[in-house]
This record gives sequence, C-alpha cells and structure tokens, in this order.
Amino acid sequence: MRRSVITGTGSYIPSFIQSNKDFAKHLFYAENNLPLETPPDVVVEKFKQITGIEERRYTDSNLNTSDISGIAAKKAIEDSGVDPETLDQIILAHNFGNVIKDTIQSDAVPSLANRVKHELGIKNPNCVAYDILFGCPGWVQGVIQADAFFKAGIASKALVIGAETLSRVIDVYDRDSMIFSDGAGAAILEYQETGDEGSGILSASVQSHSLEEAYYINMGKSYYPDSNDSIRYIKMKGRKVYEYAMKYVPQAMKDCLDKSGTPISALKKIFIHQANEKMDDGIIKGLYKLYNVPKPPEHIMPMSIHWLGNSSVATVPTLYDLVLKAEVEHHELSKGDVILFASVGAGMNINAICYRY
Amino acid sequence: MRRSVITGTGSYIPSFIQSNKDFAKHLFYAENNLPLETPPDVVVEKFKQITGIEERRYTDSNLNTSDISGIAAKKAIEDSGVDPETLDQIILAHNFGNVIKDTIQSDAVPSLANRVKHELGIKNPNCVAYDILFGCPGWVQGVIQADAFFKAGIASKALVIGAETLSRVIDVYDRDSMIFSDGAGAAILEYQETGDEGSGILSASVQSHSLEEAYYINMGKSYYPDSNDSIRYIKMKGRKVYEYAMKYVPQAMKDCLDKSGTPISALKKIFIHQANEKMDDGIIKGLYKLYNVPKPPEHIMPMSIHWLGNSSVATVPTLYDLVLKAEVEHHELSKGDVILFASVGAGMNINAICYRY
Repeated sequence: MRRSVITGTGSYIPSFIQSNKDFAKHLFYAENNLPLETPPDVVVEKFKQITGIEERRYTDSNLNTSDISGIAAKKAIEDSGVDPETLDQIILAHNFGNVIKDTIQSDAVPSLANRVKHELGIKNPNCVAYDILFGCPGWVQGVIQADAFFKAGIASKALVIGAETLSRVIDVYDRDSMIFSDGAGAAILEYQETGDEGSGILSASVQSHSLEEAYYINMGKSYYPDSNDSIRYIKMKGRKVYEYAMKYVPQAMKDCLDKSGTPISALKKIFIHQANEKMDDGIIKGLYKLYNVPKPPEHIMPMSIHWLGNSSVATVPTLYDLVLKAEVEHHELSKGDVILFASVGAGMNINAICYRY
Repeated sequence: MRRSVITGTGSYIPSFIQSNKDFAKHLFYAENNLPLETPPDVVVEKFKQITGIEERRYTDSNLNTSDISGIAAKKAIEDSGVDPETLDQIILAHNFGNVIKDTIQSDAVPSLANRVKHELGIKNPNCVAYDILFGCPGWVQGVIQADAFFKAGIASKALVIGAETLSRVIDVYDRDSMIFSDGAGAAILEYQETGDEGSGILSASVQSHSLEEAYYINMGKSYYPDSNDSIRYIKMKGRKVYEYAMKYVPQAMKDCLDKSGTPISALKKIFIHQANEKMDDGIIKGLYKLYNVPKPPEHIMPMSIHWLGNSSVATVPTLYDLVLKAEVEHHELSKGDVILFASVGAGMNINAICYRY
C-alpha cells in the first residue's frame, strides 16, 4: 500500500525578537477608536496569560515571505535528501503574498511558489509551482493537496511550504497585533510503498464555515483615531474565533482520527496551529471529552507559541520540524507513533491530518 | 469509466467599456521613464494591430473580484442545475485578491472562495473553499485540481472560478495597460460515469518555467517619472513573454492532445487564454506545425479579445461560456467534439486540458 510520507522538514525562525515589553510602550485602542482604559502594561500581562505569548519573531527587513520560504525549503530538501529536480509540485500556502517592509501592497505575481522554484534553481519544467490561500490552515491543506495529487496518480513528490510575514500587516494600535509573528515551515512529501503498518498519511478532514463565520478574521482599518481609511490591517473577532474553534475543531479532529481507525489512547502527539494557548488547550480538552476522557495525557501537545507567537500557516510545519530536531523539551517521536496535525483560521476553515510517523 | 464533466458554465462581463481612444488621451512612457516618441494615437493603433484589442471591460467601482466571482458562480450553478449544497469544493483562481477601487492593497483574507461560499449562502461545512494562484493559467489549473481530487476519491463536485480586476493594478502610463481587463468565469465540474466515448476530461499537461522566466510578468513601479516608488503595478516583458509562449506552449498542447489519443485532425476547437491575438495565432500555427499541418483549420480558435481584452484567469472560462451560449459567431460545439483548453502566464506557467464535449 502506498502512502504520502513526510521525508524531510525545515523551518525558518527569524532572528529578530519582539518582546511583550516592546508593545507596552504605546497605547492600545479599541474597535470604537477609543483608547483602552486598561494601562498598556496590564493589557500586555493579561494578553500573556491568555495566549501564552511572551515573544514573537519578525523577519529581517530585507527578506520577504518568498525568501524565508526558500530558506525553509532548502532545509527540508537537505533533510530529506530528495533531488529537487525530481519534485513534481511546489505548493506554497500563505495569505498576504510578499509585503515589502514599510509598504502596504501584497505581491503574489509571480506566485511565491514560482519564486521559490526560481530560488532553488529547479530546471525541470514538470515541477509545477502554485500557491494556495486557505487562511491559517493553508499548510495542512497543502499537504492534503499533495496527497490528493499522489492518490490521483498525477504526482509522487512534493514540497509543501507555509510562510507568512504577519508583522507587515498588523495594526500596532490593536492589542491583537501582539499575537502575530513571522515564519516559514516546509516539508517534502513522497508517495511510498510502506506496508500496512508503515509511515504516512492515514486520513484527513477539512471543513469550511462561511456563513456568519466568513469575516471573523479579515482586513480592516486601524483602531487608531484618524487613521487612513484606505489602509487595512489583519483584524480578528477574537471572542467569535474562540467560540467557533471550541465548537467545531474537536469534532473535526475526532472525525479524522476515527477515519484512520486509531483509538484515542494510541494518539501520541497533536501538532495544532499555534493560535492562542488557552484556545489550543480548550480544543484538546474538547477532543478528549468527545471520547469521554476527562483529561488529555501529559505532553500530548507540543507548543512553541511562547517564544514564536502565531505565524499563521507556518506554525504547524515549524513546530513539527522543531520536535523532529529535538528542540522541544518532553516531545519526541518514535517510529510508528500516530499523530494529528490540526489547524483553524480565516475563512473560517478547519483541517486535520492523521499521520503515522 | 468516470470522467470530470463540465455540467454548467457562467461568466460576468462588466458593463463599463474602456475603448482604445480613452487611452490615446495621455502620454505613454517607456521603462526608462522617458515619454514614448511615437504619438499616443499611433501607439494605440499599433497596439490594436498586434493584440487585436479594441475595447476592454472594467468592473463597476462598487464591485470587487469576489463579487464578480459570485455572479459568474451563480450563473454556472443555475446552468448546471446542481444543488450548491452538494458541492465538495469551491476553487477560485486569481492573482490580486480583492483590490478596492482607488486603493492599492490586495485583500485575500478570508480567501475569495470563502467569500463566494458566503455569498452563495452554502451551509454544508464539507464544501471546502480555497484560492489558487498560478498566473493567468489559474482557472485551467483549478479544473486540473478538481479533476485530481475527483480521481483521488476525495470529491466529486466542484465549482471552479477564475476572476480578476486587472483595471485596478495597471500603470496607465505603460502602453501594456491597454491589454488588461476585468472579468469572471465559472464552471461546475462533476465526476460522472460517462462510458468510453462520453464527455469529460481526457488528459492534461502542466509546466512551470521559473529560471530566467520567473519575472517576465511581475509587479513594478510606474513608468511615469517621479512616481511613488513604493506603489507597484503589473508589468510585463512583452517580447520575452511572446518568445517564451512560442517556444513552449505549442509543445505542451501537443503533449496533452497526444496523451488523450486524439489525432490533430479530430480536434474541433481550441479555447486559448486571450493574451494577445498575434501571440495566440502564433501558438496555434506552432501547434499545427508540430503535426506537419501547414495551416490551422478555419474557425479552430474562438476569440473574444477584440471586445473583452485580457482578463487573466477569466478569459478561458468566459470564452467557453460565450461559445456554449452561442454568442461567438462561427463557433459552436456538438456532442462528442474534442477540444483543448490552454493557457500561459506569470510564473511562467503553462497548462492544457483535452476535453470531450
């Protein structure tokens, strides 16, 4: 039996650290353009308690999303040992294209995947490069795309990248700006003969909710009074997103796990989109509750949000890469371990993949 | 045998007409920021001779790319009779997201496909909505994506849309701005049991060339002297694109046709990306030359570029819709006709689909 196997991973973690303290310097405003009554240092402290975020990383000003994608991609290629000329597809998930530092335009012409192909110097014209936009779950979706092309017999090797420079689309007067960060993660997927108990993707689940949920995460003007109406920033209805995630994500993860035939007791790790620690904790509790397990096992969920923030599509592949490279304490994988990847974000979109390491 | 069948089509053609005369009013500049020595009316006349474009359409100022996508989508759904709640996927190909009139930001959060799902009022959470970016060949690629998901057993009904409002990203001081227009085209794809000689996708070919070709079409500053360096517009190395297309597109189309087992003599129509009439003529001649046929048959290639210009991802589905609705003289399809869809654009990317009507 053939399965889609992750044969290499790589990530780019920007060196510039923006700490919570850096935010406490200026006043925050609310959606109604009035300053928050709570002093900034208290806002920042509360923020940390809820999200778990102490620091986040911003990409160097001379690099764009396609550049950091290329860096992560090179590491994944090296890690897997794949000859890049044999790749059938390069799939790059992002949401804002390249946004040059201190400008406001998104640039995705040519597609960022084409730019990565250029950067990698791949000559093979049959290596098809394209971008997908699916909110934060874009990288997980890219893996599902690759798996679909493999199953259809159209491709058998793919490079799947998730990369974002959210630092360039945040409204610094909005406290939610503290959530977002930059990063890139990449993986090589190969369709391999693995045997019944071999590594690979076991199942996947995807959902889109776009009725009242469509604009829970969108672009809007700054909360700063008298700001330029025509400049828009990433905006989030935090409460709504939280409630949405609690309502739908545990069930979608359960559906995925059940499809794979894996009992919850055999699940070894959950690599979930690093959105917000409280929310991620709640989702995991919700998942176990669906199986009548009152408390998730210890060390089921590696987290990187404390020092990396929420880099959208980049969080899941970066976290997976960090665990494989033994850079997350208490978290390691052994051959045969069944794990879940899961994400939720703008759209609203949800997805999950059950994978045997 | 099951094949991916187009069961309905729809398109949106903006009502606002921008004629060549409208362009002759102002001076054009070259890449070196010097005014063209040729007077504007002569530039415009030469432009028409090469591209075939007399008029192009611009979207009403109150509508964005996702809105016109929704209009085309509704028509395709009505045309096919499909219940939108049964759609497994909504795939939307574009390159610039929503660009609100008189602003410069691209907005694709949430994805335009999620917005279309919202607009269509689709409740079914298993209808997955995402965008793909693949330059002008994006819509054809979306169809190939749907076909892959069908073959993989993951989906069996999809709405595939191509939409763009290029009028909002052009540099009016660059004569190439006359090429670009706005539009949206949509199709419903269904995986159906069709029998050996039934309708459906017979084969497909895709290529990406991203070495020296990667930036033949990209974003750059205005040719107008003293323009704002940080505002960028769609830019094209016309000569390079032309040479590239002549070199690679005919062979890719031949590969696709050969894979389907169809002799060139049985090919009934070619729906090619409306990029430039001279280039499209050259590509078709090149294709027939590869089969040692000195002259393509009359009426092999329906064209809409004269009155619709180049609306990127929207040209192929719009043209196909127009022919099916008997709105292109000398062009109609009969049951069983074998046709080609083909496109080329930023990336550089090429694709072709061989389809039995």
